Amino acid sequence: MSNDYAAIHLVSLLAVFEYLLFMLAVGRGRYTYGVKAPAVTGSEDFERLYRVQMNTLEMLVIFVPALWAFAIFVSTAWAGLLGALFILGRALYFVGYSKSADKRSIGFTLSFLPTLALLLGGLFGAGRAFFA
Amino acid sequence: MSNDYAAIHLVSLLAVFEYLLFMLAVGRGRYTYGVKAPAVTGSEDFERLYRVQMNTLEMLVIFVPALWAFAIFVSTAWAGLLGALFILGRALYFVGYSKSADKRSIGFTLSFLPTLALLLGGLFGAGRAFFA
Amino acid sequence: MSNDYAAIHLVSLLAVFEYLLFMLAVGRGRYTYGVKAPAVTGSEDFERLYRVQMNTLEMLVIFVPALWAFAIFVSTAWAGLLGALFILGRALYFVGYSKSADKRSIGFTLSFLPTLALLLGGLFGAGRAFFA
Repeated sequence: MSNDYAAIHLVSLLAVFEYLLFMLAVGRGRYTYGVKAPAVTGSEDFERLYRVQMNTLEMLVIFVPALWAFAIFVSTAWAGLLGALFILGRALYFVGYSKSADKRSIGFTLSFLPTLALLLGGLFGAGRAFFA
Repeated sequence: MSNDYAAIHLVSLLAVFEYLLFMLAVGRGRYTYGVKAPAVTGSEDFERLYRVQMNTLEMLVIFVPALWAFAIFVSTAWAGLLGALFILGRALYFVGYSKSADKRSIGFTLSFLPTLALLLGGLFGAGRAFFA
Repeated sequence: MSNDYAAIHLVSLLAVFEYLLFMLAVGRGRYTYGVKAPAVTGSEDFERLYRVQMNTLEMLVIFVPALWAFAIFVSTAWAGLLGALFILGRALYFVGYSKSADKRSIGFTLSFLPTLALLLGGLFGAGRAFFA
C-alpha cells in the first residue's frame, strides 16, 4: 500500500511538522516573555502562543485518523486537498492568535471546517463500507 | 486492506467525533462560565469541562494505536467491542465529571479498562508476531 | 501487511505504554502533593510531573505518524531503533524533570532528536515516493 498513500503520509507529516514549529515558538516564547518551566501562565502573550500549540494538538488527534479514513474510503485526492487547507488554516491561526485572541477566528475556521469535512466524510465512507 | 478494517476506522472516528463534542462543550463553557481565551482557569465548572477534554485527549493517544494493533494482531471483533465500550465510558465520564469531580470515577474506569485491555492485548499480539 | 510491521506496532505501543506510566505518576502525584482534580497547579513538584506527561503527549502526536512513515518509506530497522531511543530518552526525561526543571534537558534532547530524524526522514521518503 506504501506508494498509493505517499501523498497522505506527506500531508500528515507536514501537519505534525507545522505543529513542531508551534512547539518551538512556545519554547522561544518562554525566554521572550520570561515564563520559566514548568509554568505555563504569567504572561498573556505566552499563553496565546501556548494555546495555539494546545489547540493544534487537540485538532491533530481528530485530523490524522479522519484524514486516513477519508483517503481510504472516500477520495485520496480530496483528502490531500482538505489536509493542505488544514495546514494553511493552522498557519493563519498561528499568525492571528499570536497577535491577539480576537484574531484567532479566521484561521480556526479555515482549519476546523476541513477537519470536520474529513471526519464526517470518513465516518460516512467507513460506515458505508462496514454496512455494505 | 480497506474494507476488512472498516469497523475499526468507524470506531476510531466515532471516538474522535465524541472528543470533538467535548471540545465544543468546552467552547460553549467559555461563554457560560465567562472564561475568556486564552485563560483555562477561573471557574471550577469550566475547569472540569476542560479536564474532560484534556483527559480524553490523553487517553486517545493511547487508545488509537492500541485499537489498531489489537485489531490486526488479536481480534477485529474484540477490538471493535472494546472500542465501543471506551466510547460509552467516555460519555459517562463527561456526564459525571461535568457535574462534579467526585462523579468522574465510573466513566473513567469504564473507558480506562478497555484501553488497558487493548494496549496489553496489542503488545502481546504484536510481540508474539515479532518474535514468532 | 500485519507481520512485516509487527516491530513498529510494538515500538509505538511501548511508547504509549510508557506514556500511560507517566499518566499514572501524575495521578499518584495528586495525592502525594495534595493537588485535587480539576486543578493542575498549586505544587511545583506536581507541575513538573504534569509537564512530563503533557510534553510526552505533545511529542507522541509527532512521533507516531513519523515512525510509521519512516518505517514504510525509509527503513523498518532504523525506524525501530530510533523509536527505541525515543522511549529511552523519555524515560530519562521523566527521571530528570521529576527531580528538577534544570535536569530535563538530556532526556528531552535524547527523545527530540530521534523524533526529528523520524520526521525529516519520513518527509523525505514520502516526498520521494510521491514525486517519483
